[in-house]
Amino acid sequence: MKDDNCIFCKLAAGQIPSNTLYEDEDFRVIMDIAPAVKGHAIVLPKQHMNDLLSIEEDTAKKILFVVSKIASAIKDALGCDGINILQNNGEAAGQSVFHLHFHLLPRYENDHFTIPWKTLSYAEGEAEAIAEKIRAVLR
Amino acid sequence: MKDDNCIFCKLAAGQIPSNTLYEDEDFRVIMDIAPAVKGHAIVLPKQHMNDLLSIEEDTAKKILFVVSKIASAIKDALGCDGINILQNNGEAAGQSVFHLHFHLLPRYENDHFTIPWKTLSYAEGEAEAIAEKIRAVLR
Repeated sequence: MKDDNCIFCKLAAGQIPSNTLYEDEDFRVIMDIAPAVKGHAIVLPKQHMNDLLSIEEDTAKKILFVVSKIASAIKDALGCDGINILQNNGEAAGQSVFHLHFHLLPRYENDHFTIPWKTLSYAEGEAEAIAEKIRAVLR
Repeated sequence: MKDDNCIFCKLAAGQIPSNTLYEDEDFRVIMDIAPAVKGHAIVLPKQHMNDLLSIEEDTAKKILFVVSKIASAIKDALGCDGINILQNNGEAAGQSVFHLHFHLLPRYENDHFTIPWKTLSYAEGEAEAIAEKIRAVLR
């Protein structure tokens, strides 16, 4: 099922041309035209779904094989030192196109791209209280 | 199969105590003790594998259901506006424990945590040349 207003549906379906790295029945992997790093690729399901929270069962079962396979190919082809997989859900998380996608970001030692990772401390009991809220939803 | 020197194997197996949000036969989800944001959780397979590039088939088929389920529960429980899923492969990508894990990072509008996303431009023909290297590995 496609959403006629979704640019990633059109790219995944090949209705808009792209620099395609890989395609199968369910997925298309393309070079991002506005890369955060050189070699930045995105994995798109052909089926429309907004994000990971609304992922469909068949896609959830299959998409990580594709992400893993392309990540390995990028590493072999470009000789990068590492790869970040980033998947954003919601505008507050940086999602700009509301069609599920995984970013594959080749990384090099001392490259310019960093994800700032300043760790926080919880107050006494705070982590446990947050965890209990999450567990309550899962019960 | 566990790696006796791997702290995430021990956490996943329950040999080291953790603030566990969810556990099933294959996975354990815990609160990160050094959170990048409040409510930061990590999804761990019980089976040892270094990263996504070496993910095992059964784990690849199952783990995104768990990531999606816990992400939904975090959103419902904490009322956050979005969630980043981040999975790092290699030290250059920020991986510090070499046991596959997915970070779940609750996000709020105007929060302090940002992933700087400055887009680059490719020189004429550069994207096509990089893509061709990757496609060559995939052929």
